[in-house]
Amino acid sequence: MQIGMVGLGKMGYQLSLNLMEKGYQVCAFDVNKEAVQNISNEGAQGAVTLKELVAKLDRPRKIWLMVPAGDITEQVFQELLPLLDEKDIVIDGGNAHYKDSLRRYDESKEKGVYFLDCGTSGGVEGARHGACTMIGGDKEAFDQVENVFKDISVEKGYLYTGKAGSGHFLKMVHNGIEYGMMAAIAEGFEILEKSPFDYEYEKVSTVWNNGSVIRSWLMELMENAFSKDAKLDKIKGVMHSSGEGKWTVEAALDFQTAAPVIALSLMMRYRSLEDDTFTGKVVAALRNEFGGHAVVEK
Amino acid sequence: MQIGMVGLGKMGYQLSLNLMEKGYQVCAFDVNKEAVQNISNEGAQGAVTLKELVAKLDRPRKIWLMVPAGDITEQVFQELLPLLDEKDIVIDGGNAHYKDSLRRYDESKEKGVYFLDCGTSGGVEGARHGACTMIGGDKEAFDQVENVFKDISVEKGYLYTGKAGSGHFLKMVHNGIEYGMMAAIAEGFEILEKSPFDYEYEKVSTVWNNGSVIRSWLMELMENAFSKDAKLDKIKGVMHSSGEGKWTVEAALDFQTAAPVIALSLMMRYRSLEDDTFTGKVVAALRNEFGGHAVVEK
Amino acid sequence: MQIGMVGLGKMGYQLSLNLMEKGYQVCAFDVNKEAVQNISNEGAQGAVTLKELVAKLDRPRKIWLMVPAGDITEQVFQELLPLLDEKDIVIDGGNAHYKDSLRRYDESKEKGVYFLDCGTSGGVEGARHGACTMIGGDKEAFDQVENVFKDISVEKGYLYTGKAGSGHFLKMVHNGIEYGMMAAIAEGFEILEKSPFDYEYEKVSTVWNNGSVIRSWLMELMENAFSKDAKLDKIKGVMHSSGEGKWTVEAALDFQTAAPVIALSLMMRYRSLEDDTFTGKVVAALRNEFGGHAVVEK
Amino acid sequence: MQIGMVGLGKMGYQLSLNLMEKGYQVCAFDVNKEAVQNISNEGAQGAVTLKELVAKLDRPRKIWLMVPAGDITEQVFQELLPLLDEKDIVIDGGNAHYKDSLRRYDESKEKGVYFLDCGTSGGVEGARHGACTMIGGDKEAFDQVENVFKDISVEKGYLYTGKAGSGHFLKMVHNGIEYGMMAAIAEGFEILEKSPFDYEYEKVSTVWNNGSVIRSWLMELMENAFSKDAKLDKIKGVMHSSGEGKWTVEAALDFQTAAPVIALSLMMRYRSLEDDTFTGKVVAALRNEFGGHAVVEK
Repeated sequence: MQIGMVGLGKMGYQLSLNLMEKGYQVCAFDVNKEAVQNISNEGAQGAVTLKELVAKLDRPRKIWLMVPAGDITEQVFQELLPLLDEKDIVIDGGNAHYKDSLRRYDESKEKGVYFLDCGTSGGVEGARHGACTMIGGDKEAFDQVENVFKDISVEKGYLYTGKAGSGHFLKMVHNGIEYGMMAAIAEGFEILEKSPFDYEYEKVSTVWNNGSVIRSWLMELMENAFSKDAKLDKIKGVMHSSGEGKWTVEAALDFQTAAPVIALSLMMRYRSLEDDTFTGKVVAALRNEFGGHAVVEK
Repeated sequence: MQIGMVGLGKMGYQLSLNLMEKGYQVCAFDVNKEAVQNISNEGAQGAVTLKELVAKLDRPRKIWLMVPAGDITEQVFQELLPLLDEKDIVIDGGNAHYKDSLRRYDESKEKGVYFLDCGTSGGVEGARHGACTMIGGDKEAFDQVENVFKDISVEKGYLYTGKAGSGHFLKMVHNGIEYGMMAAIAEGFEILEKSPFDYEYEKVSTVWNNGSVIRSWLMELMENAFSKDAKLDKIKGVMHSSGEGKWTVEAALDFQTAAPVIALSLMMRYRSLEDDTFTGKVVAALRNEFGGHAVVEK
Repeated sequence: MQIGMVGLGKMGYQLSLNLMEKGYQVCAFDVNKEAVQNISNEGAQGAVTLKELVAKLDRPRKIWLMVPAGDITEQVFQELLPLLDEKDIVIDGGNAHYKDSLRRYDESKEKGVYFLDCGTSGGVEGARHGACTMIGGDKEAFDQVENVFKDISVEKGYLYTGKAGSGHFLKMVHNGIEYGMMAAIAEGFEILEKSPFDYEYEKVSTVWNNGSVIRSWLMELMENAFSKDAKLDKIKGVMHSSGEGKWTVEAALDFQTAAPVIALSLMMRYRSLEDDTFTGKVVAALRNEFGGHAVVEK
Repeated sequence: MQIGMVGLGKMGYQLSLNLMEKGYQVCAFDVNKEAVQNISNEGAQGAVTLKELVAKLDRPRKIWLMVPAGDITEQVFQELLPLLDEKDIVIDGGNAHYKDSLRRYDESKEKGVYFLDCGTSGGVEGARHGACTMIGGDKEAFDQVENVFKDISVEKGYLYTGKAGSGHFLKMVHNGIEYGMMAAIAEGFEILEKSPFDYEYEKVSTVWNNGSVIRSWLMELMENAFSKDAKLDKIKGVMHSSGEGKWTVEAALDFQTAAPVIALSLMMRYRSLEDDTFTGKVVAALRNEFGGHAVVEK
């Protein structure tokens, strides 16, 4: 089967290799021509425009979008849709907001094009050797490409999640949980770090991965991380985020749901982006006003 | 009436002035001899030892402790108690932990000495011109010194709160609420600061103090603070804390009570004491491990 | 000066009385004819349609919208705008989302109509006897109606906040702070309630209002509330919310701001709407799975 | 090697079976005589008093305490210690507070008895078929019984953590992380439950366990739980807790550490124990006071 791949960044490139390994013919497009050349060297067909990509694919086409969520996904989608024909299938494997996916599903449907929203987890390694995929959209479209998901995912690692939007929504919540789990682990290590004890964190991660209640892939990653930098001395504790955590909290608010753990895991990331806060200044100023408590001057 | 004052720091000094203004004879002791001299110049009797202080007071003595909570209070109390006689009244006006006050009450009772735990709010200004006092302990002791509390407090600003410990407990919870209120105000101003609008915070504080739901003394203090430093540019957002907030959260935990607002107001203070966090490093390391997300190197 | 009042609910009705007391001629419209009749009995002109209202006002008209935020405001605004002429001034005194106000400002501007977004605090009592108002929009429009704001507000209780949207934004943040302050106070009383002490909450509120750091209008309202129901035995702890708290948290997220206190005060309101939670079921099920801990069966 | 087992509850009984399977001679005591009989039927020696247990063990004795943390552990320890001789080794495999373990270590040391604090994770299944153990105390004592830990734990599932107290401290923090991870997972499922989508949670758990970032033992347990009760309809969301989460938060506070995720995961458990809250009543009363918002009457 032919698969059109749009986007050859960290994820799309590895996924293309994964697909080819499983016997798919990949025709790949990226604005970065070097990436196109590289994947061609690996056996894929290259395309230097979306139009060329579409032209090279047999109908009904199967096109996998693997580009950053937001403006780029929107731009690519809007450029792609007019080039497609009825029954073609677009799979958005990125981290789009589920409401955007719902809208894209509707716009596609009007043209008779199928749109599947596919949440993809497992990181770069997963994209290459076995991801975890959650797919929403029309069942009849899913059925046609089920084998693709089966082949690129680890065993039992794909799920048809129901109507349009449900794949990206599930992935979004997955990421929200991920934020919370990471924060829980991180807070734990910070408490260890401030304790009167002297732990070797790599060994701690190892023992926690073997038989304990909190054994998990994230804890395995901690082993890796600590094996390279025993006390994480080389890095700063700046925690960026890429959207899904925020969307999860917003969804929680929309559903009037208390999700304090996920919300706080996100907010502490925001806090980590700042050297100083206005919040802190206000509290310090107030303490000075009523109690004469000294402020720290700049 | 004679009052023995132990401790002439920010609070004790002002309280002594307040008491003398209301007609009390103050006999004051502090390890800092300059402070004793200063208050003598204002009309108080000075004492350079606790023993001297006790000797100068008529029985039954009324002794007000106004020293920092913790070790110093304990030290002073243990030195003072053996010097006292039956029916003497010790008032601890500091921010002692209520469990310590309960213990001191018991130790005093064994000697026939009365112990009142008095939470004092209102800051330095309050100590001077009218505080807010919450007093726990034996009612018969309170009755003997009720006028003292009445006189040094603003109108309606004193309350007998019941059995031993209840005064300091109430003051502790007051401070917990204070932490939460301050944090709420501070977060609000931070959101304003990050907004696309350009507010003059002193004017904002003024309008919020006149007719709005959040009008409060704390907001009045914001007016003062912003009148001196319009954007708080001169200070750093380092938020120290002095114990009562922590005790309030610990009490909440002991009572199995969800008090997330007070707990977070405290934890964000702790966060403000750090330039970098191990929590942040762990999350950054994890993101790098699974997603190849760049870390910020030192 | 004539003022057109659209909306005669709790707030609009009281505000009309307030305006008339200050010498304004109020011409009022509401879909509820009884309310129109009532305000007419108080001396206002009544109008049974928006059209009639507009017709009765001299140009340039000053029309105050005091209707629920959201669909109703939108509906009224869309019906009203075509009826207006250049230089007319619309004041939205409700709790609209600031982004909606920005859009309405733009739509008004296209027609040459002025649009002021006015956040109004102080509750029903404030509307009647002196509110707190924060007004965004074109300065030249504000200047024409400044006296209105001055007259209906308490002294120093109005502020021109700058460009369009800034009035409603400031009111939104005010409400966010209000959520946090209320939660802080509420958590404090819950800790008192679970403590081993036996406080009289009305008296506690009184003493905290006199000289303490947390004295505030909200604490005065606690005195009122406890004076009617000493332990709040008659009511359930269901905490509804009406939007601004959620918007404040969403704004915080949009600005990548940690606002945990306001966020948690909102989420605990959501939690209070539920008898049972799926979160709780999941944790209980997990504890049962790994530790054999008993679950509570329905 | 002989091992004395004190406590034959859920954990101690399974651990005894585990030890015997690995070739140890177990001599077991419990106040519950039926449990002693049962384990005797499985091949252990039974003892009906601590004294008998001690008498039956060769010196230096190795005694494993597996009783509930708190009073019972203290009672057993205080009864046991005087019966022991120099060089005997006591292993506390329960969830004692690390400060208590430090004290017990000191008391043991005075008698020349070794005390190891061993945190045990993995639940009942782990106790039976391979636990995760973290051991603090004197290295020379650990060395003598290292094989015991090795044998009862899964591969790589035991760790000598350093000086006295460090084993129980590490286990405590492990449980704190566990609280946070469970809450993150639980909040995620609640958001799914309130979403407009219709997920099959068992399948969701399965897909999340295969290739996703959040794959973990806890998620495997979710598969089990949902396989038995697809929507957890049969249980209530009451989340009990047994101490370590609270201690973790208290430790965080002692170290001035922001650990909001762990703190909130605990506080939401407390919240789940209540049908109604005073916090909620206070907020509802306040909203009624200033805005006339209806309260929910009982």
